[in-house]
Amino acid sequence: MRVVDLLRRVRDGAEVPPDDLRSFVAGVASGEVPDYQATAFCMAVFLRGLSDELTVALTLAMRDTGAVIDLGDVPGAKVDKHSTGGVGDKISLPLAPLVAASGVRVPMISGRGLGHTGGTLDKLESIPGFRVDLDANRFRDLVRDIGVCLIGQTGDVAPADKKLYALRDVTATVESIPLITGSILCKKLAEGIDALVLDVKVGRGAFMKTEADARALAESLVRVGTGAGLRTRALLTRMDNPLGRTIGNALEVREAIDILRGEGPPDSTELTCALGAEMLCLGGVAENTDDGRAKMQEAVRSGAGLDKFRAIIEAQHGDSSVCDDPDRLPTASHTMEIGAPRAGHIASIDSFVLGMASMRLGAGRRRAEDNIDPAVGIELLRTVGDQVATGEPIARLHHNTDPGDAATETAAAFELQAEPVPRQPLVIDRLGI
Amino acid sequence: MRVVDLLRRVRDGAEVPPDDLRSFVAGVASGEVPDYQATAFCMAVFLRGLSDELTVALTLAMRDTGAVIDLGDVPGAKVDKHSTGGVGDKISLPLAPLVAASGVRVPMISGRGLGHTGGTLDKLESIPGFRVDLDANRFRDLVRDIGVCLIGQTGDVAPADKKLYALRDVTATVESIPLITGSILCKKLAEGIDALVLDVKVGRGAFMKTEADARALAESLVRVGTGAGLRTRALLTRMDNPLGRTIGNALEVREAIDILRGEGPPDSTELTCALGAEMLCLGGVAENTDDGRAKMQEAVRSGAGLDKFRAIIEAQHGDSSVCDDPDRLPTASHTMEIGAPRAGHIASIDSFVLGMASMRLGAGRRRAEDNIDPAVGIELLRTVGDQVATGEPIARLHHNTDPGDAATETAAAFELQAEPVPRQPLVIDRLGI
Repeated sequence: MRVVDLLRRVRDGAEVPPDDLRSFVAGVASGEVPDYQATAFCMAVFLRGLSDELTVALTLAMRDTGAVIDLGDVPGAKVDKHSTGGVGDKISLPLAPLVAASGVRVPMISGRGLGHTGGTLDKLESIPGFRVDLDANRFRDLVRDIGVCLIGQTGDVAPADKKLYALRDVTATVESIPLITGSILCKKLAEGIDALVLDVKVGRGAFMKTEADARALAESLVRVGTGAGLRTRALLTRMDNPLGRTIGNALEVREAIDILRGEGPPDSTELTCALGAEMLCLGGVAENTDDGRAKMQEAVRSGAGLDKFRAIIEAQHGDSSVCDDPDRLPTASHTMEIGAPRAGHIASIDSFVLGMASMRLGAGRRRAEDNIDPAVGIELLRTVGDQVATGEPIARLHHNTDPGDAATETAAAFELQAEPVPRQPLVIDRLGI
Repeated sequence: MRVVDLLRRVRDGAEVPPDDLRSFVAGVASGEVPDYQATAFCMAVFLRGLSDELTVALTLAMRDTGAVIDLGDVPGAKVDKHSTGGVGDKISLPLAPLVAASGVRVPMISGRGLGHTGGTLDKLESIPGFRVDLDANRFRDLVRDIGVCLIGQTGDVAPADKKLYALRDVTATVESIPLITGSILCKKLAEGIDALVLDVKVGRGAFMKTEADARALAESLVRVGTGAGLRTRALLTRMDNPLGRTIGNALEVREAIDILRGEGPPDSTELTCALGAEMLCLGGVAENTDDGRAKMQEAVRSGAGLDKFRAIIEAQHGDSSVCDDPDRLPTASHTMEIGAPRAGHIASIDSFVLGMASMRLGAGRRRAEDNIDPAVGIELLRTVGDQVATGEPIARLHHNTDPGDAATETAAAFELQAEPVPRQPLVIDRLGI
């Protein structure tokens, strides 16, 4: 296979032998294919697209360039969830233990936060002692014995994807549906899972701003995931406003514990339940989504979900007493309440602005090498649809340093209107088998 | 300017500030812009195109990355010709002296042959002693004093183009009209010329196989050349069969001398006259194309063109006696006549096949570093439209080594048919001011 011939075919939207694409991806990982050919490939795919068959080949080839976890000797279906990311999205934390408590194993490999979005690993590490750096063997043992484990990448997962992603970032080829699809799925496939539920966010706080774009990505993820041998479903969910009531690591763990106790905010509780119901269906323990929702609610009511979270924390060297006494989580030295600048109904809350403000308080990273402060962040005291009086507290900053412009920015993120605001359903649509 | 923003704009077909494109091209030449961004640019231009305004900016920016010859103190219009290349195309050799003899200065910088096509520099060097490596000062002096000079690139001309061309070659982005346009024109602009006539070939022996593609390229060259400040015209000419009667360096010099003597083959004589007429118009010494043709014919008839060729050869250290005694040119030790495999009318002669056969005889290069043999090549004894009997000699190989398969290949390049073959005009169309 000559790379230039492959590039010509991709450029022309012509047929490409899947084996040639596999050799190309292996060459990208090994360095045999130079970066300047890899970026020409990315731009050609960006502008010409890639068939589902070839996106499956790309995905599997990227997976196979790195470590793949084998969970073949762990009984039962292994089901994970992936979210395209949003501000205040702590759903993995209550979701994983509730699904595991309901009888479906959850091998979950997560990432860290960057820019305005947080990362599940950072949130977990705000629990004193919690370790996310377990090796693949320990991961497999915990998935088998506890039914769930929450870690970061083990070994060198999909190095071809890492390389292509870095190159896409500097060549304006990030926003390509086949390339996004391959990048998401190759890492999930490397976890050794059988099924995957995708939370594809849409809205101004999401990567995909329009429903059409988000739907196209969700459809691609479902088709390619299925083509790669995963039972795959996707929910299209709204991400205009922050999810739940907290932004910031320990604050979000508190909200996760609230959800596990049945005391969480309506929106994050609802999304946890909706995604969990799909996972239970794909895992074969629920007959349908309604049955799945009932089982999720039962796992909350019975306390089985919170127990499972306690078990995870203990197995991963953390202080599980936070489940009963959340004040043992890191706490900021100062808080500051933000009052409504005028009276009205809250029409929207700009999640990007709050994500950036929270980052500047220290909850997030500007660059990958930055340190974060687990205690700080933003708590929403009122949310979309609420009616507020002038000066009424609408948010609370948790900070350890001078909050700078965070107070002004947070106040400005709230859009107020005279008329009442209708509540919109969080889940827009459901795709897949 | 962030390169990734430029790439995003090119990718989207959005407006790009020409200054940003200039910085990008300068960065490509200096190495500040890495290859992987340069190739993403080439693929984006390939698939999205580039406006004329930006192609002008690209062209001028590429020119300005290297040496530019200043002919400002040479009086009169300086006019050059560029051909997109074809087998047997020795037109520059008679054209330059005829145009110079008619009063228009011709500063001509040419290239070497590769693969199935020959190069003007190689043809000139088959004249004993002829030197093409004069420096820019000597080049300027000869253009001023003799009215013409024929050399290779001096100094480092358009290094950004060299780099981009090499990258395009390995990323399937060669056949892009804006990129071809920029690559051709930036080097011509570096010669310090005022006007340019383009010979854009079309046909199975040409880079552009279809008239539509060739016309699109010719139109782009004329628009962008004009936009870059050159008076520009283009002829669309047929390149299905080899041009003239000879393929191979010294053989082609003989044909050039024949043309200068008024004894050349009809097709190469006609093309010399047609291109020269356009150059004389652009140079301001002919009122129109008819007048230009008349002046070209007069330069042949009077011997002024041949005298000028003699003067060039002497000024460039060659043996000008070849003009009167072409047998002083290198001659192959062996010749072999090829007979017609059957009787019929010659419908076509595959120029690619003959170009490759000639290369294998030693007249051309497989790789840029190969040496060539000036004496060898292929002489056509009969051409398209001629009627031949079985066994009648149709071509003659000139060789110094075992000709291998060249005889069989040459015979097979002639397509014979029972019906007479109508002659087709060589010049298809004329574009530009």
